[in-house]
Amino acid sequence: MRARLDCVECIVRQARRTAELCTPDPALRLAIVKETMRRLCADPFDRSPAEHSLAAYAAAAELSGVSDPFRESKAEQNATALAMYPRLRARAAGSPDPLRTAAKLAIAGNVVDLGVGLAFDLNEEIAKVLDGVLAVDHFARFEEELAAARTLLFLCDNCGEIVFDRIFIEAMRARFPELRVFAAVKGAPIINDATLEDAAAVGLAEAAEVVSTGCACIGAPRGAIAPRLAELLDSCDLVIAKGQGNFETAGDPPRPMYFLLKAKCPCVAEELGVRFGDVVFMRRPAPEA
Amino acid sequence: MRARLDCVECIVRQARRTAELCTPDPALRLAIVKETMRRLCADPFDRSPAEHSLAAYAAAAELSGVSDPFRESKAEQNATALAMYPRLRARAAGSPDPLRTAAKLAIAGNVVDLGVGLAFDLNEEIAKVLDGVLAVDHFARFEEELAAARTLLFLCDNCGEIVFDRIFIEAMRARFPELRVFAAVKGAPIINDATLEDAAAVGLAEAAEVVSTGCACIGAPRGAIAPRLAELLDSCDLVIAKGQGNFETAGDPPRPMYFLLKAKCPCVAEELGVRFGDVVFMRRPAPEA
Repeated sequence: MRARLDCVECIVRQARRTAELCTPDPALRLAIVKETMRRLCADPFDRSPAEHSLAAYAAAAELSGVSDPFRESKAEQNATALAMYPRLRARAAGSPDPLRTAAKLAIAGNVVDLGVGLAFDLNEEIAKVLDGVLAVDHFARFEEELAAARTLLFLCDNCGEIVFDRIFIEAMRARFPELRVFAAVKGAPIINDATLEDAAAVGLAEAAEVVSTGCACIGAPRGAIAPRLAELLDSCDLVIAKGQGNFETAGDPPRPMYFLLKAKCPCVAEELGVRFGDVVFMRRPAPEA
Repeated sequence: MRARLDCVECIVRQARRTAELCTPDPALRLAIVKETMRRLCADPFDRSPAEHSLAAYAAAAELSGVSDPFRESKAEQNATALAMYPRLRARAAGSPDPLRTAAKLAIAGNVVDLGVGLAFDLNEEIAKVLDGVLAVDHFARFEEELAAARTLLFLCDNCGEIVFDRIFIEAMRARFPELRVFAAVKGAPIINDATLEDAAAVGLAEAAEVVSTGCACIGAPRGAIAPRLAELLDSCDLVIAKGQGNFETAGDPPRPMYFLLKAKCPCVAEELGVRFGDVVFMRRPAPEA
């Protein structure tokens, strides 16, 4: 999706919040916000929100020298989710429809904020997603396509969330043992997105062949990703994309893609045709009725 | 008050919203937002939010050629409020404490959005302010000081709201017929602030001596206002300032000032020491206990 005019103010806010994480110095914080605005001014602003918002994170890293301000919070997110892994995995496996439950868990992983939650609240939030309605629910079609697929590319999103993704991938492979799954994580730290290091920390390689996007981008924009990931995007029978960043940068993919996410911003919600805050399991292109 | 880092993203949002009012052309809207950011980048950003936000309105006016995008909505606000004038004035005059009721009406004028309300909702909103609690209530001290005052400067805020201000000024002069009241409106159109034209449209001159700030600023910043207004600020026994803009630009006045407003932004609320959305009748400096 293409960035909208509203995205500018949102990116400036992201710059401010990242600056606040990177430094206590008010002058440096202001300099980071200004540098972000300078970069936005110099840009035709015709790409996805995810791509344009990199201006904020790059400005913060370059001016403050802090290249990974979310490092501690990411480690916490992974640890919190890992602690829940055995119980959640058993819950999916023991449910009447293990694949669907695992799919909804993967969506729950995108919904909950593992950086701030108490265990009690997290469980409640996860239960809400499991018991709740998907605003768009193309799972039945997914199940059919998965049965026919030999290869699947899974575009991961955040730390912590990748533990939930692992459970979903394991459920797919339990059902279809011949399925080959590639799980893509970021090539270098960006916000709280999962990297190879995080994939290793949560044992993602036990469920899938882990690959890197080859860049520190949000999502997987065609112009920036490594050739290997582009190949997988072109050749895998199915692609699952988690979170807003992967949706924003998907473009017009040659293969059917399934987007699993919570619409955390009004612009993405509008683009998806759902309400702000809705959760979806959405196929693009939409399945024929 | 000095602008905070959060104000930057808010000013960018104001630029976007004003651009949307000024032109349907997406490229021109983007140009307005970018020009606003360029001006913010070139500024030390050490003045009040009200002063910095002028960048957005100036960029929109200069690039689009639309110097008064709120013209129609202002006329509507004045007309809506004028239609309520006889009834509201009678309500204040007939209440057990006409001066206090009129003061709360003046605050209600800052709370309600006269550009969008239906008569029914407006009456309900006004009733809510009249029956509601002031988060800071220095009215008793105001009444004492007013009894001793010979001159009062009233810094007006928005169109429509000035009708409510007129009722308050009339109530003060009904109680203290010797009181000389000056009512300041903007020297040229800025957002939906009242100008000399609006003062004339609502008959403000029947209640007070109308003066101009001499500039198209938000609030009344010392560095920008006409010498005549600066003189009044220095010489009047009391000053009443309506709305956030007048609060933000007040600086450290030599005379006691009373701020009548709703805290419509979290930064102003924090500066006032109240919660977002609270309404206040606040003396600065605070009265001795």
